[in-house]
Amino acid sequence: MILNRLDALAQREALEAGSVSVRALLEAHLERIAEREPAVQAFAHVDAEGARRTADSLDRAGVRGLLGGLPLGIKDIIDTADQPTAYGSVIYEAHRPSVDAASVAMLRAAGAVIVGKTVTAEFAHRLPGPTRNPLDLSRTPGGSSSGSAAAVADWMLPLALGTQTTASVIRPASFCGIVGYRPTFGLMSCAGVKPSSPSFDTLGVFGRTVRDCALMRDALLGAELRPPAGEGGALRFGFCRTPFWDRVEPRAAAAMERAVARLAQVSAFGEVVLPDALARIAKAHRAVSSYELATGLATERHQHPSGLSPLLRDGKMAEGLAVSPEAYVEAVTALEHARLSAADLFASWDVIVAPSVSGIADIGLSSTGPAEFSSIWTALHGPCMTIPLAERIDGMPIGLQLIAARGRDHLLFEAAEHAAGAFGPRPD
Amino acid sequence: MILNRLDALAQREALEAGSVSVRALLEAHLERIAEREPAVQAFAHVDAEGARRTADSLDRAGVRGLLGGLPLGIKDIIDTADQPTAYGSVIYEAHRPSVDAASVAMLRAAGAVIVGKTVTAEFAHRLPGPTRNPLDLSRTPGGSSSGSAAAVADWMLPLALGTQTTASVIRPASFCGIVGYRPTFGLMSCAGVKPSSPSFDTLGVFGRTVRDCALMRDALLGAELRPPAGEGGALRFGFCRTPFWDRVEPRAAAAMERAVARLAQVSAFGEVVLPDALARIAKAHRAVSSYELATGLATERHQHPSGLSPLLRDGKMAEGLAVSPEAYVEAVTALEHARLSAADLFASWDVIVAPSVSGIADIGLSSTGPAEFSSIWTALHGPCMTIPLAERIDGMPIGLQLIAARGRDHLLFEAAEHAAGAFGPRPD
Repeated sequence: MILNRLDALAQREALEAGSVSVRALLEAHLERIAEREPAVQAFAHVDAEGARRTADSLDRAGVRGLLGGLPLGIKDIIDTADQPTAYGSVIYEAHRPSVDAASVAMLRAAGAVIVGKTVTAEFAHRLPGPTRNPLDLSRTPGGSSSGSAAAVADWMLPLALGTQTTASVIRPASFCGIVGYRPTFGLMSCAGVKPSSPSFDTLGVFGRTVRDCALMRDALLGAELRPPAGEGGALRFGFCRTPFWDRVEPRAAAAMERAVARLAQVSAFGEVVLPDALARIAKAHRAVSSYELATGLATERHQHPSGLSPLLRDGKMAEGLAVSPEAYVEAVTALEHARLSAADLFASWDVIVAPSVSGIADIGLSSTGPAEFSSIWTALHGPCMTIPLAERIDGMPIGLQLIAARGRDHLLFEAAEHAAGAFGPRPD
Repeated sequence: MILNRLDALAQREALEAGSVSVRALLEAHLERIAEREPAVQAFAHVDAEGARRTADSLDRAGVRGLLGGLPLGIKDIIDTADQPTAYGSVIYEAHRPSVDAASVAMLRAAGAVIVGKTVTAEFAHRLPGPTRNPLDLSRTPGGSSSGSAAAVADWMLPLALGTQTTASVIRPASFCGIVGYRPTFGLMSCAGVKPSSPSFDTLGVFGRTVRDCALMRDALLGAELRPPAGEGGALRFGFCRTPFWDRVEPRAAAAMERAVARLAQVSAFGEVVLPDALARIAKAHRAVSSYELATGLATERHQHPSGLSPLLRDGKMAEGLAVSPEAYVEAVTALEHARLSAADLFASWDVIVAPSVSGIADIGLSSTGPAEFSSIWTALHGPCMTIPLAERIDGMPIGLQLIAARGRDHLLFEAAEHAAGAFGPRPD
């Protein structure tokens, strides 16, 4: 049995049965990290000794809680009191918060062993960290939750926490061939997460299966475990190619069509064209997120301007400073209209199926990939999930994204479990 | 000339003219603080030496910026890198953030001299700090921005920063007889402010005149100074007694009616009854704000439960933990509907006039006063301002609140300047 290859739920079972100790499970992952981290570089910081102390104390006290004894990674945009937190920025190289983020406190309370901080793009925006795609080291893992996606995909961790403001969960999870879940906006507190755009910032969960992500979701909510109950077959799926379909790489588009056709065979299914009002909200998302990014990083702009990358400073930050308060409020209002009108869409369809991103991960580490395939869904505030297809291109995974109405997170998990079955098993 | 009795704009003029030094202006305020602070207790921390160093360096370099050389106070819910920040909680007694909040960085960049941290209720909620109402030490100053309101009302500072999640700016400003301004939601970043309810949290400004508040508004926005231009006389004012009018103390209600009658003589004026859908949103505000309070303080709940007051822990926090994710999302959706329907209201009226709170400040320090007179307006996300009436009851001030549509902050200032003229001068 290679412990670190087990899914999180199986690891949890082994721990509960006493067939493996928390310490042994941790060591299996630390070995994998030692072996692979020099190539993959998923971590901003690994706290092996701290994790060993926690593991040993859990072994002495007995594991408890939804995540009792599971080793986890935390995106380095999220504050941890016992480990450095650099937000992917040279400005914060030596930063060590004194308080855990609310999400970290929830995970610890559920018995998690925090192994380390995973690499994030600068302030969860676009400047990539050093992380490589574990499936092909010459390719980007996507971002901004690069390290969380890579670590879970490469069996260094069973689960990891990330964040999404535009595409920062869905994109890296798709590029790395795993499951990524962005919850309904507001459901899980971002207290202690460095703000990027408070109108869109959410946490995000990375796992290798839909059910593993449900485990971490319930731990973050402080809820009872509620895995998908097998009700996805009764749901209505609407396939939406989005206004950006012509930017999907042709081989990926064909693979997505084949996967969707398999789903259509076992589900109520139709095609969806986005109403214009929804198709246009990517622009409003951009205005709001750039305004909030620029105003939220006022301290860094004024006190550490040379520590900001030109990509950030001259890019989205400059763009945000040019958004007037009036234009900001207009965009906020347009987004509220769009969210309420999305109710019509979700009256016809339980779940929308759409591309997670334009295709497989690009070669090179200079870009984390396109964001437009997520910005509409992010702006609508409903839950989103990417699941990997069975088919790969050049050995690289492709994902499809499922989206549900606000608050329908459990329904989304049912849909995802059903769709994953239709797509076929994720190749190892 | 008693320097600390001058309005902020007059202080600024004196500094620019060179007729007074930054250090001399600071010392005038420090003297007032030394004299009054033992009784009023507006400050969680005074950094006299740090402020003197800043003042001297501004005197050497020459004052610059909208707030160049003005002494300011910062509510102790807002992070400062050079001063402790305790969030009004025993859990954070020794807390000292390493980074300024975005708002503090904007104020420093505008040349402000940060004199100290002002008292906040526990986590900007309800458990009062030690602050007394400077107009009658036996009475509450209101909360949660208690210290900011008291310090400005008592001539210890010309301007101070606060925050509002329900009524935490409007209420204390009204109780202390000064002007309080809550900006349009989202316009000014709350990065570095301890979150209470991210769906409603905003900054807030305390000053003794409308024009002083405009000065601080523009500094926080990083904008050019744009004082009211005297255009308020052309606006349409709608007087809304709110569904809570029967809770307004009768003498205060009569004073409000008299002030509104004076405004009606010099303005387009009518009476407004809130549509039911708006009148009901206080309940949705409560569901969302309690859910977000409880989830946002997960670290404190799990790691420092005995440091939470019973008022918070067994009150709003327990209430928030009982709000289901479904109920939370339902309330969020109801609030979006209400915000969009408020557009109809503001098509008929440029500005709504309503009670700031139920009347004068209560005797005793155990409660910061009722919140329902602000929760509807807070939930609508538009800008709000309280201005003091000329009339007082038992020597204590009464305020009226002005509310405008989202993004109409400049219009609100025009309206407030006009209304303040109609009400007559604030008594000293």
